Amino acid sequence: MESILLHEDRLFPSDSATKKVARTLYQEIRDLPIISPHGHTDPRWFAQNKNFTNATELFITPDHYVFRMLYSQGISLESLGVPRWDGGATESDPRKIWQILADNYYLFAATPSRMWLDTVFHDVFGLTDMLCSNNATEYYEHITTKLQDASFKPRALMDRFNIELIATTEGALDELSHHGALKGTGWDKRVITTFRPDDVVDASREDIVANIEKLGALTNEDTQTWQGYLNAIRARRTVFRAHGATATDHGHPTANTADLSTNECITLFDKVRTGQSNAEEQELFRAQMLTELAGMSVEDGMVMQIHPGSFRNHNTSLFNQFGRDKGHDIPMQTDFVRALRPLLSKYGNEPSLNIILFTLDETTYSRELAPLAGHYPCLKLGPAWWFHDSPEGMLRFRHQVTETAGFFNTVGFNDDTRAFLSIPARHDVARRIDCRFLAELVVQHRISETEAASIAKKVTYDFAKQAYKLG
Amino acid sequence: MESILLHEDRLFPSDSATKKVARTLYQEIRDLPIISPHGHTDPRWFAQNKNFTNATELFITPDHYVFRMLYSQGISLESLGVPRWDGGATESDPRKIWQILADNYYLFAATPSRMWLDTVFHDVFGLTDMLCSNNATEYYEHITTKLQDASFKPRALMDRFNIELIATTEGALDELSHHGALKGTGWDKRVITTFRPDDVVDASREDIVANIEKLGALTNEDTQTWQGYLNAIRARRTVFRAHGATATDHGHPTANTADLSTNECITLFDKVRTGQSNAEEQELFRAQMLTELAGMSVEDGMVMQIHPGSFRNHNTSLFNQFGRDKGHDIPMQTDFVRALRPLLSKYGNEPSLNIILFTLDETTYSRELAPLAGHYPCLKLGPAWWFHDSPEGMLRFRHQVTETAGFFNTVGFNDDTRAFLSIPARHDVARRIDCRFLAELVVQHRISETEAASIAKKVTYDFAKQAYKLG
Amino acid sequence: MESILLHEDRLFPSDSATKKVARTLYQEIRDLPIISPHGHTDPRWFAQNKNFTNATELFITPDHYVFRMLYSQGISLESLGVPRWDGGATESDPRKIWQILADNYYLFAATPSRMWLDTVFHDVFGLTDMLCSNNATEYYEHITTKLQDASFKPRALMDRFNIELIATTEGALDELSHHGALKGTGWDKRVITTFRPDDVVDASREDIVANIEKLGALTNEDTQTWQGYLNAIRARRTVFRAHGATATDHGHPTANTADLSTNECITLFDKVRTGQSNAEEQELFRAQMLTELAGMSVEDGMVMQIHPGSFRNHNTSLFNQFGRDKGHDIPMQTDFVRALRPLLSKYGNEPSLNIILFTLDETTYSRELAPLAGHYPCLKLGPAWWFHDSPEGMLRFRHQVTETAGFFNTVGFNDDTRAFLSIPARHDVARRIDCRFLAELVVQHRISETEAASIAKKVTYDFAKQAYKLG
Repeated sequence: MESILLHEDRLFPSDSATKKVARTLYQEIRDLPIISPHGHTDPRWFAQNKNFTNATELFITPDHYVFRMLYSQGISLESLGVPRWDGGATESDPRKIWQILADNYYLFAATPSRMWLDTVFHDVFGLTDMLCSNNATEYYEHITTKLQDASFKPRALMDRFNIELIATTEGALDELSHHGALKGTGWDKRVITTFRPDDVVDASREDIVANIEKLGALTNEDTQTWQGYLNAIRARRTVFRAHGATATDHGHPTANTADLSTNECITLFDKVRTGQSNAEEQELFRAQMLTELAGMSVEDGMVMQIHPGSFRNHNTSLFNQFGRDKGHDIPMQTDFVRALRPLLSKYGNEPSLNIILFTLDETTYSRELAPLAGHYPCLKLGPAWWFHDSPEGMLRFRHQVTETAGFFNTVGFNDDTRAFLSIPARHDVARRIDCRFLAELVVQHRISETEAASIAKKVTYDFAKQAYKLG
Repeated sequence: MESILLHEDRLFPSDSATKKVARTLYQEIRDLPIISPHGHTDPRWFAQNKNFTNATELFITPDHYVFRMLYSQGISLESLGVPRWDGGATESDPRKIWQILADNYYLFAATPSRMWLDTVFHDVFGLTDMLCSNNATEYYEHITTKLQDASFKPRALMDRFNIELIATTEGALDELSHHGALKGTGWDKRVITTFRPDDVVDASREDIVANIEKLGALTNEDTQTWQGYLNAIRARRTVFRAHGATATDHGHPTANTADLSTNECITLFDKVRTGQSNAEEQELFRAQMLTELAGMSVEDGMVMQIHPGSFRNHNTSLFNQFGRDKGHDIPMQTDFVRALRPLLSKYGNEPSLNIILFTLDETTYSRELAPLAGHYPCLKLGPAWWFHDSPEGMLRFRHQVTETAGFFNTVGFNDDTRAFLSIPARHDVARRIDCRFLAELVVQHRISETEAASIAKKVTYDFAKQAYKLG
Repeated sequence: MESILLHEDRLFPSDSATKKVARTLYQEIRDLPIISPHGHTDPRWFAQNKNFTNATELFITPDHYVFRMLYSQGISLESLGVPRWDGGATESDPRKIWQILADNYYLFAATPSRMWLDTVFHDVFGLTDMLCSNNATEYYEHITTKLQDASFKPRALMDRFNIELIATTEGALDELSHHGALKGTGWDKRVITTFRPDDVVDASREDIVANIEKLGALTNEDTQTWQGYLNAIRARRTVFRAHGATATDHGHPTANTADLSTNECITLFDKVRTGQSNAEEQELFRAQMLTELAGMSVEDGMVMQIHPGSFRNHNTSLFNQFGRDKGHDIPMQTDFVRALRPLLSKYGNEPSLNIILFTLDETTYSRELAPLAGHYPCLKLGPAWWFHDSPEGMLRFRHQVTETAGFFNTVGFNDDTRAFLSIPARHDVARRIDCRFLAELVVQHRISETEAASIAKKVTYDFAKQAYKLG
């Protein structure tokens, strides 16, 4: 009997003619190397190359997709061993935590988490039965044992997963010690960093004053002046580029940009650096900084990624106990048309500028993003993101974007994950869905199968390398 | 020749593999009892158990889905016998009105009204030809004659329709006499009420001052004070619970909530109870009251339903002639992320709180509602509502919600109708569409057929009973 | 081997049962005459009946769909020969420009432009290979030679394309000389104008003061008074009707309407006519004028088309060089529910009023437009527009609109184009997609094949004639 865990034709459409084309397209691209130009894996893994510990620490406690679903059904984060930043006690027995996942695995039916986990269980660990209460212990032991093997060390998995390149993401104040440790090993070509300056740009952060001071200390610039502050950011960009970075990343609440006069900038910055800005000024400062950072990208060629639209830390009491990134960031309605105009009016026609836009608000696909990317030479569209990094989400992206922006204003897939083992699974979902979408175009006689095959290769591999300037 | 009115495989997809799975799933759940936990049938029907009068009074004059379509094509509401609240004359011959529906029945092609009506005509009355100008009289006589039969009395239809439980909806000032009449008959377990306090909470109503006074009279509480007003509402909740209510319902224009200090509440309430509040204060009062009502639900365990987003009575001159609920309520853009935060910050992690969210703004499915319900333990999602209570609407709901919230953060189907005879038809549409959606997941190898069958039963029956705490 | 350019079953679904129904429906309507009630062809073509010049001037330089995609990939508008309004130099060799299109034709994969162009190349010029770098010269010569033939003159193409009627669009100040030249030739019944008064209504235009003066000169009305201004507009409407116009068109940024007192109107108009209005007043004036224009439509029976939601001229520096309509208009979020209420409160139930609504914001389809059109007798929905005039866009329109508004509150297809040769291709896409949508309803047993055939004819031909009052 065939495995119920993972069917060879999963995610392909049922219609036999379309499935046949999808399968053929997929065969040609399924084994292409993985380019992972945007993600959140820990560079320490690749620098130190130590084994991972156990199934629970790998798959549950760090994965907010997983524990948010369990939490939504009344399971406490404490019982799942999610660390509290207020120091409160949490479950420490990984086997008990694993059993909770197994007992509640049915909750994940039809979610991408289920498909990612099943794919890892099957492809990486050779498991063939679906996780359930009865096999929880067996699963835990099997995975945890395997993890101790040399072939499961991070670098071995990089090879096994055929990951040609992976980008991590570090804050502007990060000293990049792990990337530094990779220097000259050859691995520095495969594991690169990304410059994410939110910690020194987002004036609403409680640590913004200290961060601007640290930025000065780190760069020997006088970050108490506007020009010194900008120069310090420039200096950090240079250091990041020396550690492989080709891109920057910006996780602002909105896509707002501004184009203030220098005097206005100085006045605003003085409020920010002294901790005296209010919410409106903080938003304006972030807006101005997106434009400043675009200007720096024009100078140094770094590709700019804009990831707006998340209401961070929505659940106040949970935030007070557990802190950031605990599954309670919620998407918000997002505007791009008015928001990006100041930046685009200033730099939108610069041949050397490259901006990749992401959204959590799918209504912007056909209304704003595809029309913008289908006009401005500097703009391209990132893949379906976060909650929309899912089979249906990807289909909606292609269906709503392609007719106006085409394929060539998109940049291929990003996994955007800290769940290292799931990276092949995530890319595989994108590859299957892209082939499904292309197959639909073929059977509806909108493109030829030859064109579809060519596009399949580009969206899988070429576009990511080109858009992120990866060699 | 097969009936053109009702095909056994209606609403299933054409693809033969998917259709086969859908059909199999549907066979297993089609005859499950109906749980109708939210609706607007008249409790008088079940208390008095009198026969309905005629086809027109049953199917046209009370159904705003039906007469709004006719009105949109230039047919006056007067000619359809819709009662005017200004006392103006309207058509009184039910046969003439029925003929208008028949003459214009083609307008309903591809609408849910058409499918509901056809299903009632076929399944309840045994008719097999589509309604048209030529058979209008025959149709009318056939239905009206049947309606006089004992087997067409409300309680007989409850049995025939296999409705295990139905909830009606009453305002806070309703004396619940019909539910009272059912007490001790056994029917009080099958026909329960729902507490809808909009009449004493919505400060924009012209009768709010009088209603708050009536609330005091009814409860012997001093509703001229904030605490007395809250206690009076608590008292009504207790009475409603004694008449079977397990849930409350809130039809506010927005999902706004607030968390004011007691002093602010007192000041605001004083304006409201004296009829001196302006539009902004009215909105703030509704917002504060949603939070107060959530607090009461934490106390007494009643499930809270929030139905925001309708612009009521859009057509001013029609409103002046015909009043409320005449097909001119129009959906509006709705925000949940910021709107619900005050309530969720206060009560969002309470294990005893249960809130069911509905929307008329489908853009919130993937952007706001699924992420919220996929995190907060108190939140679940109601089914596709009102204009979206339709085959396409339900598919959009499942496609956009499931990957983030799963199935287990949803509550099954609500018919939300006053059209008693259409209840089985409406539930049947939901059952077919859910089976179709599940079948798609099966043939795309995302879930197994066994899982699909289990979920089909839950979304059809179990979830409604659990979410509404129905025994 | 079959042509790769154009498959007989293009755009039909792959599922064989559905495809069969779609094909049958399409056979019945594919050859119906074209009604083109809204578009932007040049009336000079039909008045003068001269040959078109060459492939480039016909297909590239005037088509913003085409050059915006090329521009988005870094190809300058200068190199494409798009004329600059600042007098700057642009490429003047049509062969060089054509080669650029050919070299980059792959960019258009899966876009409607590709399908329109391929259809023209194949059906009008008999070409069978896809345009590419290698055949660019051959393509250019072939098309350009054919264009010199008498059978390719505009009137011959009107006959060949089976265009029964085409409406052009002219501003309020246009003297309609080309339509005048057609008077009495018989062609005046086939080529009619449309009244678009934005040039004298949109107070944000730099030429508004002059335009209001010109309007006075043209009509002998004193347009320095509010009543004189309104009378002048009435006078122009009369002239347009004498040149065949049955409709007006309004391209406002929003759908806002207002219902001010006469005194408020006079005060506001005085600011507008003297060039002293600010942005807020300009918006209010446009809003008031939509209501005034609706009142005029009640008087004279002209059908009103509202096309809101475009952020015009988004790219400032491009605008400064190349001006309007250069592919940098971007859709914006659009509200109809609150925006239209002042107008609808005043005229919404007038039997003689006909308003056709269009949108660039697809989120309004199911939330606002279908519920509005499914209630108000004066409202009907125009087809999927501009960026959404595409196979996927049309499907989304039908899927999201039909269940609430039905088919009979829609008006058939508009091509809205200045690309004359693509008109049959555009109508063909709409016909295929409508047949596909209807076929889905048939195979899901929601309507019978007979009903589907009847509706197919209506959406293809009858609705356009009725909605635009075309004889």
